[in-house]
Amino acid sequence: MEIGLVGLGKMGANMRERLRAKGHTVVGYDRNPAVSDVSSLSEMVSALPRPRAVWVMVPAGEPTRSVITDLAELLDEGDVVVDGGNSRWTDDQYHAELLGRRGVGFVDCGVSGGVWGRTQGYALMCGGDPAHVDQVRPVMDALKPEGGLGFVHAGKVGAGHFAKMVHNGIEYGLMQAYAEGYELLQTTKIVDNVADVFRSWREGTVIRSWLLDLLVEAMESGELDRIRGYAEDSGEGRWTVEAAIEHAVPLPVISAALFARFTSRQPDSPAMKAVAAMRKQFGGHAVLPSSSAVRPDTDAP
Amino acid sequence: MEIGLVGLGKMGANMRERLRAKGHTVVGYDRNPAVSDVSSLSEMVSALPRPRAVWVMVPAGEPTRSVITDLAELLDEGDVVVDGGNSRWTDDQYHAELLGRRGVGFVDCGVSGGVWGRTQGYALMCGGDPAHVDQVRPVMDALKPEGGLGFVHAGKVGAGHFAKMVHNGIEYGLMQAYAEGYELLQTTKIVDNVADVFRSWREGTVIRSWLLDLLVEAMESGELDRIRGYAEDSGEGRWTVEAAIEHAVPLPVISAALFARFTSRQPDSPAMKAVAAMRKQFGGHAVLPSSSAVRPDTDAP
Amino acid sequence: MEIGLVGLGKMGANMRERLRAKGHTVVGYDRNPAVSDVSSLSEMVSALPRPRAVWVMVPAGEPTRSVITDLAELLDEGDVVVDGGNSRWTDDQYHAELLGRRGVGFVDCGVSGGVWGRTQGYALMCGGDPAHVDQVRPVMDALKPEGGLGFVHAGKVGAGHFAKMVHNGIEYGLMQAYAEGYELLQTTKIVDNVADVFRSWREGTVIRSWLLDLLVEAMESGELDRIRGYAEDSGEGRWTVEAAIEHAVPLPVISAALFARFTSRQPDSPAMKAVAAMRKQFGGHAVLPSSSAVRPDTDAP
Amino acid sequence: MEIGLVGLGKMGANMRERLRAKGHTVVGYDRNPAVSDVSSLSEMVSALPRPRAVWVMVPAGEPTRSVITDLAELLDEGDVVVDGGNSRWTDDQYHAELLGRRGVGFVDCGVSGGVWGRTQGYALMCGGDPAHVDQVRPVMDALKPEGGLGFVHAGKVGAGHFAKMVHNGIEYGLMQAYAEGYELLQTTKIVDNVADVFRSWREGTVIRSWLLDLLVEAMESGELDRIRGYAEDSGEGRWTVEAAIEHAVPLPVISAALFARFTSRQPDSPAMKAVAAMRKQFGGHAVLPSSSAVRPDTDAP
Repeated sequence: MEIGLVGLGKMGANMRERLRAKGHTVVGYDRNPAVSDVSSLSEMVSALPRPRAVWVMVPAGEPTRSVITDLAELLDEGDVVVDGGNSRWTDDQYHAELLGRRGVGFVDCGVSGGVWGRTQGYALMCGGDPAHVDQVRPVMDALKPEGGLGFVHAGKVGAGHFAKMVHNGIEYGLMQAYAEGYELLQTTKIVDNVADVFRSWREGTVIRSWLLDLLVEAMESGELDRIRGYAEDSGEGRWTVEAAIEHAVPLPVISAALFARFTSRQPDSPAMKAVAAMRKQFGGHAVLPSSSAVRPDTDAP
Repeated sequence: MEIGLVGLGKMGANMRERLRAKGHTVVGYDRNPAVSDVSSLSEMVSALPRPRAVWVMVPAGEPTRSVITDLAELLDEGDVVVDGGNSRWTDDQYHAELLGRRGVGFVDCGVSGGVWGRTQGYALMCGGDPAHVDQVRPVMDALKPEGGLGFVHAGKVGAGHFAKMVHNGIEYGLMQAYAEGYELLQTTKIVDNVADVFRSWREGTVIRSWLLDLLVEAMESGELDRIRGYAEDSGEGRWTVEAAIEHAVPLPVISAALFARFTSRQPDSPAMKAVAAMRKQFGGHAVLPSSSAVRPDTDAP
Repeated sequence: MEIGLVGLGKMGANMRERLRAKGHTVVGYDRNPAVSDVSSLSEMVSALPRPRAVWVMVPAGEPTRSVITDLAELLDEGDVVVDGGNSRWTDDQYHAELLGRRGVGFVDCGVSGGVWGRTQGYALMCGGDPAHVDQVRPVMDALKPEGGLGFVHAGKVGAGHFAKMVHNGIEYGLMQAYAEGYELLQTTKIVDNVADVFRSWREGTVIRSWLLDLLVEAMESGELDRIRGYAEDSGEGRWTVEAAIEHAVPLPVISAALFARFTSRQPDSPAMKAVAAMRKQFGGHAVLPSSSAVRPDTDAP
Repeated sequence: MEIGLVGLGKMGANMRERLRAKGHTVVGYDRNPAVSDVSSLSEMVSALPRPRAVWVMVPAGEPTRSVITDLAELLDEGDVVVDGGNSRWTDDQYHAELLGRRGVGFVDCGVSGGVWGRTQGYALMCGGDPAHVDQVRPVMDALKPEGGLGFVHAGKVGAGHFAKMVHNGIEYGLMQAYAEGYELLQTTKIVDNVADVFRSWREGTVIRSWLLDLLVEAMESGELDRIRGYAEDSGEGRWTVEAAIEHAVPLPVISAALFARFTSRQPDSPAMKAVAAMRKQFGGHAVLPSSSAVRPDTDAP
């Protein structure tokens, strides 16, 4: 089929390539003319046969809202828009209504797979009206992995991004679990070679997984020795914890993984200043001056 | 090669089967005569050619100590004992010395793979003298998976069980991460079918893993609807957190997973009684009588 | 001074009493005629001299919004409204603008002290324009404790409720810390009498506090033996964690305390079902049927 | 009464002063001749009337064990030794038996109060035989606060240090709760002056406490602006979590507080390196080089 694709960054460009390799016609638009197939959003829309299908793959929040608002002006009754970005699921209903007023359908679609998706396929989690999902099914089939899994129509509008959000929340917990095990092996020095142990775990163990494979590759490439213990977060872990709080669901592991990332980005910790100050007040325990450039390696008994 | 195998429970019996299928001669001993090949530990030892190799596969703690103590009496210079159970790594040195005084070698070997190991192979994490590990290498090769991974000689005596302990600690964190995601999907009812979502995740996603596969099977079999939210722990998660505390390694996710299991086994929570009582004292907030048989389903705003 | 007081529940009625005891004139209105001084909100407004001051003490959310919307109709330029309820701080700006369009001032005021406030005074955390706070300062002075502390003008509109929200978040963490210590003493049975230990801590220790005093009272009254480990939450703990997430502030202790309350209210745990099911799948570990009425007291080694 | 006091550091010297002020005769011994009343442990013992009482106030572990071993040689039937240090409660039974073989009694006594104890009194938590506790009761009465609380005979040998250990575990949780609230106020900048808010909380609030008073003092003195977010731990928090794990007691808040201290002391986090490396592997997310001297202040959306 023919599809418009808005956003040709890391993810979008790879998806265009996979779709074309599978025989689909993709009209890609990006603000960056170097990667764009057309010079404007309206040119992209004009190039598509009706009913049109447009896949939006731009950053969540304002960029996605802006593109969808523009598309609501350009598209017509019977067309369909897929938001494949990492939008917060609570934004989907607004976008569906905005397009719905023009008779344009809307599908929210969480996409997983990262840079490996181009060759291995993307896992897709969709929400929306079944008729709208069907309109883009050939594209979904081309994007998803070969094995028959990796695609779900999770429910009504919003359910796709909600499922993707929970996927990412789980991802935070998994990564932190491996990371804690790594630190424990690395620090205690009881095993001779931490990378050898992790590599051996890739087969036969209960904890084998794709993330483990990736971590072993990072170890083997020396990556782990070159980088800082500093981890960003892209928002989906935050939304997961917020959704849990709203519904009174306890999330001790996923929230701990999120907080570990926050902490990793702090040059100094206001909270731990307060703890140190209280210890000094009641026990006369020593404190360190804030100006000291390097954290000492000492450890209390 | 020929090997004695002590302990023919769920794990031991499966391992005997795999070893025999790979052409090894196994003389198995178990206290239960129905599954035992010989009638006593000494009969087993007598049936083995020298230098003898004996694999111990009995519960950690007292049972393992007892068997190894008996073997120290029965074996001779040049023989070797493998402890394949879930022994605490801090026990290994004692066992190595006990046997070493008789000139008997000792290898500690963490074994992962559970009930699937018989067909898929067992992941093995060994500690000990290289010469002792070499004495049992044919058996290790037969037990491990086909793919070339799944075996590591992690270091000196104790390193094998230490690596296995950390493996299990990671396992706790991974399981809890999936479990929290499951609860969030199940409780919020935003996706139509939780099992469909999890099944789709088995391909193409960042979180695909063997544990995810198993969880999907449990969902598809209806298992999740029949059981209680009650999870035991077998000790390795506890030892992992204790090792981390000893070395000042922060383990927020693995400890949270461990505590979630503790909580799942409590018929009532003393701690939360204290919280409820304080809330009543300062704010006049309502409390529930301890005699009430069923927890209400209400939820505060 | 003269003040209107809307909402004569547990808190409001006590505050009316304290204000009258300090010589102020309070016209109280409540939907319940049995406790109300007047028969309607408008009658209350009419009874006040101009510029009028009205203190709103009704539940957060819809009830507060409704009362303030009505007051915006009834009051005039130069009057001032105080929201003394547990409103979410993000609601304050809306209320301030609603009233501001009529020239009516707005002060948000978090109130702590619970049922003890009538005699010991209430801690007050205010936000708003200094001129508006000054209009109700005599009432603030009468409500606050005698010691000179217990009052802060924390900043602009919203700062009062924000400070109160953080106060309550801290409160969650403190309560859970005492509760965990209680459970550890209670479960291990190493000390002879847990209440004696807690009582002794009321003097000379680092952990002495008002909450500790209250917990000891609950122990001495036998309350702890009569109630269930079931704790509600009133929303402020949730908002605290949400505010922290928005600003990338790690909150491991306060969030753990919040999640412990969520867990205490669950008749069964979906997450722990998933953990139990995975353990069974890979290790053949036993599970408990969901129908079993009583949680066994067993504990794994 | 007359008592020997071994160890005249920060705590011991203050206790000697308080005891003398209350009319007791103290013979103090310290390895440092500048503060010692006698030149040797045996000289101290000789200076005491029989039955003798000796209070040991030296660091936990090897120093305490060494002093008690020496005292077992020097003392006689009917004498009594008090271990007032922060010994791990599991050491107490060994010390009791060591002394008991000579007919010397043993009391373990956790002491709280820090540098304020000299004037305000020390909270004391004792374990041991009632007859042994009675032998030193005049000293206990002199050390404890005036108010009638602050002393408990918690149970058999070990119960005193166990109660003190749990006290300190609670202390970790309390401190971290205040610290998290401080960081949230400090970071969000929604209140104008964080110290003003904390100061106001000292009266009338639910969270008023001695630790809060101390934290306010640290704020007012500018201490918080001069120090690093770096907090040691003295062992009792670790033992608390270990005791909880042994008894399957969930301790989410106290363990989170402990781990926050561990993290505060790390110049870089191995675990977060692993997380960053995995994010790069699957998503191409940026990482920071380990060589960069300063952590950037950026924060992900």
